[in-house]
Amino acid sequence: MKKLAYIVLLVVIAGVSAGQEVQVERWDVFELALPGPTEGNPFIGIEFSAVFRQGARTFEPHGFYDGDGTFRIRFMPDREGVWTYETRSNRAALSGKQGRFICAAPSPGNHGPVRVRNQYHFAYEDGAPFYPFGTTIYEWPFQSDERRQRTIETLKGCPFNKARFLVVPPWRQSYVEGPGALDRCPFFGTSKENWDFSRFDPEYFRRLEICVEQLRDLGIEADMILFRPYDHGKWGFDTMDAATNERFVRYVVARFAAYRNVWWSLANENSFIRHLTDEDWDHLFQVVQEADPHQHLRSIHNAGRIYDHRQPWVTHVSLQYYMAVRALGVSPLLRDIYRKPIVHDEINYEGTITKRWGQLTGEEMVYRFWSAIIGGAYATHGETRLQPDGDGWISRGGTLQGQSPARIAFLREIVEAGPAGGLKPIDQYYENNMAGELGRYYLIYFGKDAPTQWAFKLPDSELETGMRFRADIIDTWHMTVSPVECMFEVEPLDRYSYIDKDRATVGLPGRPYMALRIRRVE
Amino acid sequence: MKKLAYIVLLVVIAGVSAGQEVQVERWDVFELALPGPTEGNPFIGIEFSAVFRQGARTFEPHGFYDGDGTFRIRFMPDREGVWTYETRSNRAALSGKQGRFICAAPSPGNHGPVRVRNQYHFAYEDGAPFYPFGTTIYEWPFQSDERRQRTIETLKGCPFNKARFLVVPPWRQSYVEGPGALDRCPFFGTSKENWDFSRFDPEYFRRLEICVEQLRDLGIEADMILFRPYDHGKWGFDTMDAATNERFVRYVVARFAAYRNVWWSLANENSFIRHLTDEDWDHLFQVVQEADPHQHLRSIHNAGRIYDHRQPWVTHVSLQYYMAVRALGVSPLLRDIYRKPIVHDEINYEGTITKRWGQLTGEEMVYRFWSAIIGGAYATHGETRLQPDGDGWISRGGTLQGQSPARIAFLREIVEAGPAGGLKPIDQYYENNMAGELGRYYLIYFGKDAPTQWAFKLPDSELETGMRFRADIIDTWHMTVSPVECMFEVEPLDRYSYIDKDRATVGLPGRPYMALRIRRVE
Repeated sequence: MKKLAYIVLLVVIAGVSAGQEVQVERWDVFELALPGPTEGNPFIGIEFSAVFRQGARTFEPHGFYDGDGTFRIRFMPDREGVWTYETRSNRAALSGKQGRFICAAPSPGNHGPVRVRNQYHFAYEDGAPFYPFGTTIYEWPFQSDERRQRTIETLKGCPFNKARFLVVPPWRQSYVEGPGALDRCPFFGTSKENWDFSRFDPEYFRRLEICVEQLRDLGIEADMILFRPYDHGKWGFDTMDAATNERFVRYVVARFAAYRNVWWSLANENSFIRHLTDEDWDHLFQVVQEADPHQHLRSIHNAGRIYDHRQPWVTHVSLQYYMAVRALGVSPLLRDIYRKPIVHDEINYEGTITKRWGQLTGEEMVYRFWSAIIGGAYATHGETRLQPDGDGWISRGGTLQGQSPARIAFLREIVEAGPAGGLKPIDQYYENNMAGELGRYYLIYFGKDAPTQWAFKLPDSELETGMRFRADIIDTWHMTVSPVECMFEVEPLDRYSYIDKDRATVGLPGRPYMALRIRRVE
Repeated sequence: MKKLAYIVLLVVIAGVSAGQEVQVERWDVFELALPGPTEGNPFIGIEFSAVFRQGARTFEPHGFYDGDGTFRIRFMPDREGVWTYETRSNRAALSGKQGRFICAAPSPGNHGPVRVRNQYHFAYEDGAPFYPFGTTIYEWPFQSDERRQRTIETLKGCPFNKARFLVVPPWRQSYVEGPGALDRCPFFGTSKENWDFSRFDPEYFRRLEICVEQLRDLGIEADMILFRPYDHGKWGFDTMDAATNERFVRYVVARFAAYRNVWWSLANENSFIRHLTDEDWDHLFQVVQEADPHQHLRSIHNAGRIYDHRQPWVTHVSLQYYMAVRALGVSPLLRDIYRKPIVHDEINYEGTITKRWGQLTGEEMVYRFWSAIIGGAYATHGETRLQPDGDGWISRGGTLQGQSPARIAFLREIVEAGPAGGLKPIDQYYENNMAGELGRYYLIYFGKDAPTQWAFKLPDSELETGMRFRADIIDTWHMTVSPVECMFEVEPLDRYSYIDKDRATVGLPGRPYMALRIRRVE
């Protein structure tokens, strides 16, 4: 096996007698490395954590064995100023080590981890809104250097600020292609016959760390999928026993939780992992919740049996249910059922492969994104078009060829220029194509209808006679925003609606995929 | 106040020395009446129950005070043969009374209470399928004798086998109209100023019992709504305190749980009862669950805040969310989220009133019923057309004038002639208009589309080359079933579908609201 190149993180062998103060910026990774025992199996039976303290606040991340006699603990300080720490362990060499460091101001572009905000939406911890526009690149960390670099270059020019990928790749007949491609697995061993599930391969995880860092540096959240069902009886990483699963989760959380851009996706298509019940997933969620001092977002992505996203350890709904974006009006229902952010994390993929889940036109992909957004929810992109070196973007990353990313970028601009608190369905019981902020901002999406005009009419909530509005006609496919010249002034029509006092209408081009943006003039 | 006429139930003053054996048919009401203490307030502080026993099975229904010094206990025996009982009480007069009775075979038409069956469906306790086709007559028990009788006559000619109605009517300026109309309230008193919430008015509840019996005798389930928010600050039955609410629930359960046709609907539009939280509803559900020895179906009907129907004490989802029936494909999602039967208990009403919830055309009402059914769910009808003596069917019952009931009857016939286990969505991720039983029966609904032909093509699950099918063209509006002459024989088309080996198509009339029924020929 080749030795993977990897970037050495800020490594601090800290102690009470250390000289110059170590500095880490807020929400960045502080790492402590200590030499520790190597006899026996250092992955098993060694308890190792550290209590990080600033005033009355403490956090206790778990450490992990990184091979070659080195144990590490990572911590993401969330307040500026002095932090102290002291290690705990059942081994003397790892116990009672004390130190301190200074947490400095975050650099520009570092907004901290993403949290749920305003019940159905997200924001970075510094308060900046975060509207997820995700994409799917399941196996990109395991590709050749060249293809990984190409993925990064593609992402630089994309609207996507969240990437879903697998922590363990699916089984493939011949996985390794080209220099730098994956040549090892999460566990020591070479095949199903000889995995040592009690020993992790640190080099494997260092590769993933580089990928998480690369995404972080692009401002992209890393939606890391811990389990997946795709081994077809070969590797067997989808049939591991409960103890191995839990140890795996703890190891991944110990290594990655200090990265501010991490989201935990417990699984992709979880119910296809037949031997795991909902109660098993409950337990694994709770392991993550307990082990992650930074409380990154947690969800799970379903196959036929939908896990109960209302469980308290689930922060948002990560759903695969195509009908829920094919019809307008379903996302508001999901919000009302779950009372959490809804992220349609699989809505089929743009492409032309023979599998029906990868046959969307660009128009349909964009329609489904708008359907999610207009329902007060979010969606995740993927593309299956084959690339010259095999497979599509959703599998191995590389280059995007589809028509949807540019339109998704256009939609993201509209959303980011909209109400900071996110879009809320307007009157979800009767109107299925309207979201915004009552009385101030309305985004109306006509989807596959092709109206030639729209009579100015809005649901009555928060409206008063005399309020004035301006409108923009938005062509969601051709990516144009055309202001309507006239100003609108409203008066009540009936018990439910306000209309323009002069019964004004807005002319529309009779094409599908049009939208209107109505904004109050103060 | 007038004294209400009421039917005296089978009343048994039973004792160990009784002569001839009392007989009650299976799933009918056995009632024990005992004289008890009248000093103070007999509604408060008197514990009274009876243990009914047959072999190793025991049930302990609570009794209730019925006024005039009489205490009653009701019990619905669910097995034929000898039952014995012994009362328990903290008052000597009501304690230790023993007796027995014979439970005889049920008479024709008595199938017992309705239970959840096959996860998403219902059946009577004797195993006969029950497909709910509900209607809404919120205030019918409180109308004049004449109007109540008219309601009963109407129901005799209707497809409806479940009726939703309120246990407490909404406040109205002038409630009483005509002989026999409601002239009393659940509690003693005459107005908000002087309700005695510690004393129930037995005559009030006797009226409701008559109504439940009348429905039972028509084979109609009584979906009894315990709480509702409609007092507008007047009567105050929607602002009662927790202790009163609980006492009210216990009293209603004690009186009604022995009726086999009862369903418990904890509330209509529960979140409009502003002072009750979800936790309050949790508690009230648990009170019902604990107090009802017969475990009738339990659900709750929402306003804006949807109660969590996944709670274990909820037997089925009773939903008000119009979008969920306006678009095909939503009910399968709800099934997959809740894993319980889905009953769309309010889908707007047929009529032409100015309130937007009562403006459906007959076509739209029928469409929404089909939408529910084709999604493996059920729906509930209502009609708002005004009648000569005021208000519509949904409020006061009376006569139906709409176009939908005949079509709903037609749909019910189709469902009842279909798979006994109920309709299951076929391939809910990609097909939104198909339900049935894989490999045997397919009901395909074209809704508002108006195709002129349908190429014979079915999702592949459970199909094999050479299987043969017959088709019927169903006009859901004109209520016709037209068999297609030819027989179809299938072969695989691709990885997802089977088609007719001769590429046969079925001609369709190019009208909306058409359906196809495809049945396997053995």
